[in-house]
Amino acid sequence: MTKRLFDVDPWRIKSTNLDRTDKRLQESLTSIGNGYMGMRGNFEEGYSGDSHLGTYLAGVWFPDKTRVGWWKNGYPEYFGKVINATNFIPVELMVNDRKVDLAIDEVKDYEIDLDMKKGILYRSYTWVEGEKEIRFTFKRFVSVATKELAVVEVTAEVLKGDATIIFIPKMDGNVKNEDSNYEENFWLEMKRVSGEKSSLTTKTIENPFGVEQFTVTTMMESSAENYERREFSEGFMQVEEKITYKLVAGEKAKVTKYVSVLTSRDVQPENQEAVAAEILDQALALGVEAVEAEHIAIWEERWHKADVVIEGDAESQQGIRFSIFQLFSTYYGEDNRLNIGPKGFTGEKYGGATYWDTEAFILPMYLSVADEKVSEQLLTYRHNQLPGAFHNAKQQGLQGALYPMVTFNGIESHNEWEITFEEIHRNSTIAYAIYNYTNYTGDETFLTTEGIEMLVAISRFWADRVHFSKRNNHYMIHGVTGPNEYENNINNNWYTNTMAAWTLRYTLESLKKVSPIVVNELHLKDEETSKWEDIIEKMYYPHDDELNVFVQHDTFLDKDLLTTTDLDPTERPINQHWSWDKILRSCFIKQADVLQGIYYLNDEFTLEEKEANFNFYEPMTVHESSLSASIHAILAAELDKKEKAVELYARTARLDLDNYNNDTEDGLHITSMSGGWLAIVQGFAGMRTFNGKLIFKPFCPENWTEYNFMIKYRGRLLHISVTQETVSVRLEEGEPLDLTLYDQEMVLSDVVESPILFSQTIK
Amino acid sequence: MTKRLFDVDPWRIKSTNLDRTDKRLQESLTSIGNGYMGMRGNFEEGYSGDSHLGTYLAGVWFPDKTRVGWWKNGYPEYFGKVINATNFIPVELMVNDRKVDLAIDEVKDYEIDLDMKKGILYRSYTWVEGEKEIRFTFKRFVSVATKELAVVEVTAEVLKGDATIIFIPKMDGNVKNEDSNYEENFWLEMKRVSGEKSSLTTKTIENPFGVEQFTVTTMMESSAENYERREFSEGFMQVEEKITYKLVAGEKAKVTKYVSVLTSRDVQPENQEAVAAEILDQALALGVEAVEAEHIAIWEERWHKADVVIEGDAESQQGIRFSIFQLFSTYYGEDNRLNIGPKGFTGEKYGGATYWDTEAFILPMYLSVADEKVSEQLLTYRHNQLPGAFHNAKQQGLQGALYPMVTFNGIESHNEWEITFEEIHRNSTIAYAIYNYTNYTGDETFLTTEGIEMLVAISRFWADRVHFSKRNNHYMIHGVTGPNEYENNINNNWYTNTMAAWTLRYTLESLKKVSPIVVNELHLKDEETSKWEDIIEKMYYPHDDELNVFVQHDTFLDKDLLTTTDLDPTERPINQHWSWDKILRSCFIKQADVLQGIYYLNDEFTLEEKEANFNFYEPMTVHESSLSASIHAILAAELDKKEKAVELYARTARLDLDNYNNDTEDGLHITSMSGGWLAIVQGFAGMRTFNGKLIFKPFCPENWTEYNFMIKYRGRLLHISVTQETVSVRLEEGEPLDLTLYDQEMVLSDVVESPILFSQTIK
Repeated sequence: MTKRLFDVDPWRIKSTNLDRTDKRLQESLTSIGNGYMGMRGNFEEGYSGDSHLGTYLAGVWFPDKTRVGWWKNGYPEYFGKVINATNFIPVELMVNDRKVDLAIDEVKDYEIDLDMKKGILYRSYTWVEGEKEIRFTFKRFVSVATKELAVVEVTAEVLKGDATIIFIPKMDGNVKNEDSNYEENFWLEMKRVSGEKSSLTTKTIENPFGVEQFTVTTMMESSAENYERREFSEGFMQVEEKITYKLVAGEKAKVTKYVSVLTSRDVQPENQEAVAAEILDQALALGVEAVEAEHIAIWEERWHKADVVIEGDAESQQGIRFSIFQLFSTYYGEDNRLNIGPKGFTGEKYGGATYWDTEAFILPMYLSVADEKVSEQLLTYRHNQLPGAFHNAKQQGLQGALYPMVTFNGIESHNEWEITFEEIHRNSTIAYAIYNYTNYTGDETFLTTEGIEMLVAISRFWADRVHFSKRNNHYMIHGVTGPNEYENNINNNWYTNTMAAWTLRYTLESLKKVSPIVVNELHLKDEETSKWEDIIEKMYYPHDDELNVFVQHDTFLDKDLLTTTDLDPTERPINQHWSWDKILRSCFIKQADVLQGIYYLNDEFTLEEKEANFNFYEPMTVHESSLSASIHAILAAELDKKEKAVELYARTARLDLDNYNNDTEDGLHITSMSGGWLAIVQGFAGMRTFNGKLIFKPFCPENWTEYNFMIKYRGRLLHISVTQETVSVRLEEGEPLDLTLYDQEMVLSDVVESPILFSQTIK
Repeated sequence: MTKRLFDVDPWRIKSTNLDRTDKRLQESLTSIGNGYMGMRGNFEEGYSGDSHLGTYLAGVWFPDKTRVGWWKNGYPEYFGKVINATNFIPVELMVNDRKVDLAIDEVKDYEIDLDMKKGILYRSYTWVEGEKEIRFTFKRFVSVATKELAVVEVTAEVLKGDATIIFIPKMDGNVKNEDSNYEENFWLEMKRVSGEKSSLTTKTIENPFGVEQFTVTTMMESSAENYERREFSEGFMQVEEKITYKLVAGEKAKVTKYVSVLTSRDVQPENQEAVAAEILDQALALGVEAVEAEHIAIWEERWHKADVVIEGDAESQQGIRFSIFQLFSTYYGEDNRLNIGPKGFTGEKYGGATYWDTEAFILPMYLSVADEKVSEQLLTYRHNQLPGAFHNAKQQGLQGALYPMVTFNGIESHNEWEITFEEIHRNSTIAYAIYNYTNYTGDETFLTTEGIEMLVAISRFWADRVHFSKRNNHYMIHGVTGPNEYENNINNNWYTNTMAAWTLRYTLESLKKVSPIVVNELHLKDEETSKWEDIIEKMYYPHDDELNVFVQHDTFLDKDLLTTTDLDPTERPINQHWSWDKILRSCFIKQADVLQGIYYLNDEFTLEEKEANFNFYEPMTVHESSLSASIHAILAAELDKKEKAVELYARTARLDLDNYNNDTEDGLHITSMSGGWLAIVQGFAGMRTFNGKLIFKPFCPENWTEYNFMIKYRGRLLHISVTQETVSVRLEEGEPLDLTLYDQEMVLSDVVESPILFSQTIK
C-alpha cells in the first residue's frame, strides 16, 4: 500500500527516475522552506502535466468565505487559508524556440536531489532532441541566513549539436488556491516594474471579516554573462526577462536568479521595493557562493544540535532526518506570530496556521531540541490569541475560552460542526502544554502570569460545558469528537473527560502558586472553584471492569469489535474506501484516543493499565492520522513491545517518504514530523520528565547497531548514545544534574554508562 | 413569537396593509400554483425593495454541484434543486415616465387578496403623486383547467388628474436561485421572439452528472384596446412590449396578459413554440371570463370533495382551507413523475422534489380525499425510482435499497452526512406507505407486485445495516439520526429500530401473499429470511422500566432532562438562537420521534404506554419541524388531552399563516399542509383504519360548534359531521360498509347518528 519514490540515503532525497505519474508526490517530498517562505518541488522550467504549483509565505493568509452544505448557528464565517503567493521560481527554457517541458520531452540521466544537510534542491537531466543533447542543471534554496532571499541557478551545457537557448527568469502573481471555496483568485496586482530589477507587488483581495489585507513585493535580478541578448517584459501580474545564448557543443551558460520577498507583515508596502532592492544588492555583491555558504553554515549548526544518528538502518536514518529537516524548514521559532501549519510550505490542504497538533506533538520535541525561548514563544502565541478563544466559546453560547481547532488569529476557522463544535478536547491540550513547558523547564514564570490567565479561562469553559446527569450522579460531557475523528458526536469520551478534569485540577493547583495580585485580577468566585472541585470529584469516566480498560466512550463496547486484521487490505486506508457512516459505526480508530490520555498522564497509570488498554485499542487502530503511530510507538516501547514500537516508528518517521496514507501528494504532514523523534527519544530511549525528574530507560531496536541524540534540559545539553549493549549519557554543557537511568538515581556531571537493562515486568 | 400578516377570513388571505418589512413573508403566503407551475406572490409591476422573486415549474430542476466544507466518501455528487424559471408575471407600469414601485411610492386603499375558493390572487391600490391619483387593480391565476396557461390582468383607472400610463408586459429569463451553491445562473438563452406573440426559450446549463437539460418556452400575448401606442422589444433573455395610454380622470385602461409555458418534460423543444401559440390562441378566443370560469369550476369541484367546514372558529377555518388550497396547488396527482416538494411553488429552500414527508404525512390525507389512483401514483413514483435507491445503498457500501432523503430521480441529493447517511428511518416509511395504502384501500395488487419488490429491497438494506452486538446479544442500529433531527449520530433510536424490525416483519408476512412466480424473481435465499427472523427476534429496543417509556436512544436519559417551560422564550425557536452543538446536547426534540412510532403502529400499544410516552416526550418537544404538531395533536386527542390537541392543531393548521417557526419567508411548509387535516380527521374525529376496520371516535373542540368533512374509503364517499352533542356519518356514495363508531360496530347503509361518547380511561 505504500509508495516509495526516492532512494534510501542518509542525507538525500534523491531519485534518478522522472516519475510523471506521481508528480505531485515528488513535489511534496522535495519542498523546501526557511520558516519565512517556501515552496513545493515545482520545476523551474515549468511542467505542462499534472502538477500542484505552490509557493507560500508564512503568516500571509486569506479568510475564505465558509462553504457548507447547510449553515448551522455558531459556524465560523470564514475558513482561514494559507494562500498560494507569487510564484518566483520559474526560469523557463527555450531551445530553438521549443519550450523545455519534462511532461513530454525526451530526457536521460535525470536526477533530482534534495540535500537535507545543506537545504538545497538540485536537479539535472540531459535533454534530447534528435541528435541534439543539452545538459540542464538546477539548484535552488531559500536562505536561512537571509529569510527574504531565494536563489535559483540554472546551467545549460550543450553536449551534442548546437542550440539557441533562452533562459526566461519570471515571476507570476496570477496564482490560485486549488482549495478556494468559490474559485476566487485571492490576489490583486498593485504594481509591476520591469527592468534589471523586476518586481511585482500584489495584495490580497478585500474581505468582509476585518482580516488585514497583505501586500507582498517580490523582486528578482539575474546574474548572467556572455549572453547574446537580454530583454525585459511584463504583462498582467507577470514580469519576465529573456536571456539568449547561442551555444555549440561543449559550451555552457549559467543564469543565477536572486529573488527577494517582502510582506506587509514586516515591511510597510511603500518601503517594500527599496528593502527588496537592498537585499538583492547585498546578495549580488556577495555572490552565490558566499550566499550559499552562509545558508549551509546555519543548516550545519542546526544539525549539530539536533541530528539523530542511527547506525545500521539506512531507512530509519533517512526518515528521522527528513522529519527534522522539514520541521525546521517550517518553523525555527523566530517569530511568535507564526506557528506550525499542518502542511507548512508544502501544500495548502487543511488551511489554517495552527492546529492542536502544535501543543500535542510538536512542543515536546522543541522543548528538547531548541532553546526554551522557542517553546515559550509557542505558548505566547496562544496567550496572544486568548481574545479569539473567548469569542469561540461565546459563539457556542458558553463561558470561558475555547481554543480553536484551526486558526490564524485565535478565531475558529474550521467549519464542520463535528470538529469545530465538538472536538473540544483541544482546549485541554493548551493547558497541558503550559504544564509540559513548566514541568520540563522548571520555570514557573509563564505559568504564574499569562499561563494562569489561560488556565482559568479554559477551566471556565469546561465548567460550563459539562452537565450534571441527575440519574447517574455524575458530571458528563456529551456531544464530542475525541482524538479519534472516526467517531463523531459521542458521549463521555474517556480522553476528553479525563483531560477536562485534569485541567480543572491543574488550574486549582497552579492557582496556589500565583501571587494574590494576579489572582485578584482573575475575578474568581468561590462558587466557581467549588464547582470545579465538584466536577473533579464527580466526573464520569467510562470503564469496563471485565476488560479492565478505560472505555473510549459510552457505547463503544456495543460495537462490532474487530481488529485491523479483519480488514480487507484493498480497502485501506479506510477513509479513502469507506463511506463516512461506515467508518463512524466501525470500531476502527484513526489515532490514539484513550492511549493519548495514557501518554499524556503517563505517570498516573500502572503498567497493567497501560498494557490492558494498549492490547485492547492498538489492534483496532488504523493509524490513518499522521499523529497516531508515534504515540503508539512510545507506549509500545514502554511495554516492551519492541517489534511493534519499531514498526510504528517506521510508520511515523517515513510516513511521507513511503506515502503510508496515500495522501502525501497534497503536501507533507508537517505537524507529525516530530513523531519519529518522539518515538526514538521517549520511546526507544524511554525519556520521561514527570515531576521534574529526568529519566531514561533505553533500548536499541534489534536492527539498529546504535543511535545518538542530543537533549536540552534545564540549561544543560546532554548527548545520549545507545547501542545494543550499553547506554551512555554525557553532559555536554551546563551544571551537574540528577538523572535516573533505568531505576538508578544518580548525579550526572560528566558521562555515565550503563549496560542496557531495559525490561518491563507486567504483573 | 408568531406573526400574522393577513386578516382572519374563511376563504381569503387578505390584508389592507402594505407591509414592506415582511415582503418575503407576504410573497410566500400569496403563492399560487396549479401542480404544473406556480409562483410566489411577487408584484407584477416590480418591487425595488427586499423581495424573493420565484417562479417554478414542476419537475424542472438542476443538479447543483455539491457544496460541503469537507468531502466525505459516499456523498452525493450534486444537490438537486428546484430552480427559478423565467419570470412571466411582470406587467411593469410607468406613469408619466415614472416607474410604479410600491417599495417607495405613496399609495392608499391598498388591498391584497388571495381567493382560495377560486384560486385567484387579487391586488389593488390607489397610487398617489401630488394631486394625481390612479387606481391600479391586478388579477392573476395559473389555470387548473389548462395547466400551461397563466393569466395576468392589470387595470388602471385615473381618479384624479391625467396621466400617460405605459403597461409593460414582460418575460425575464435572467433569473437566479438564491441558494445556488456557486452563484451560477442555471439557464441559457436558446431563442427569443418579439412581436404580438413574444416568446423566450431557455435551457438549463450543462451538468456533468448525466441529468437531462430542460428546455422551456414561455410565450405571452396581451389583449388591450384603445391604446395610444404599442411597441415590442427584446434584450438578452428578455422580451417585452409597451402599451401606452393617455388617460384623464374617470378613464380606465386594461391589459390582459396571457402566458403559456411549455417544458421539454412534455413537449419536444422544436414543437414548443407551436404548442404555446395554440394554447394562447385558444385562450384568447375564449376570452378571460371563460378561461377564468373553467378554472374556478375545477377549484369548486375540488372544494366540494375536500372542504372541511368548521363552525365557530374562524381562525381554524381559515387555517385548514389554506392548507388544503396550498397542497392542491402543489399536487393533485396528475403526473406520477412528480411529487410533493417541501416548498412546492412557494420557494426554493431545501431543494429536492421529494422527501419522506410525502409518505409519512401527505399520503394518509390523499388516501382519504382523492381517488385511490392518486395515492397509487405516489407509490409508483417510488417504485420507478428503485434503481436510485439501490445506488444509494451501494454508495454507503450496503446491500439492498436505501430510499433517498431528498431526490428528484431516486438518487440521494442531500449532502450532510448526518442526514444523508444517517436519517435512514426514511426507508421504513416507504414500506409503511405500502402497508398504509394496502390496508386503507384493501387492494393488494400493488403490494404483491411492485410493492413486494420494494419491500424485499428495503429489508435487505436493514439486514445489512444492523450489527450484532455480541456483548448484548442484540441486533443494534448505530449511527443514525432519528425523526428528531436535533440529535445526530445516535445509537439505537427506538423509532428507527422499531420500524426497521416492523419492515422485516411486514415483508415476511407479505411474501406469503405473493405468487410463487413473483417470489422466484426476488431470488430470496433461506439464509436471508432466516436472518430477518433472527433480527426481528433479537432487535434491541431501548426501554426504561422506571419511567415506563421507550427511550429515544441509548444515552438519552443521561441528558439534562428539562421541559420547554425551562426555555427562555426569547431564545425560541432554538434553531435560530442556539449553536448546533448546544441543540444536539439538549433534550429538546424537534418533532415526534418515539411518538411518531406510536402514531404509525398505533394499534400495537396500550393507552397506558401512549400516555406515559406522550407525557414524557411532549413537554420536551419544541415543534420546530412543521411535521411535529399534527402527530402530537392526534395522540393528544386520543389521550383525551383536548386542549393540547386543539393548541397543536392551531399550530399545524396556521403554521405559515401565523409564521410560528419564523421561517415562512423562505416559502410555505407544503409537506406539512396535511397536518391540520390529519389533526381533525385522525385527531378530533379519531379515525383509525388498522386491520381493515374503519373506526371513528369523534369529539368536537370546545370552541367549535361543528365541523364537517368527507372521506373516500374503499369505493365509498362518507360525510362526517360532528357537533358538541352528536356525530353523524352519512354514506354519500357506494355500498354499505362496516363501521365502528366509538366502540359500537355497525353497518352503515345511509346515515348513522350517535351522541358524542368520547372518553378515554387510562388505567
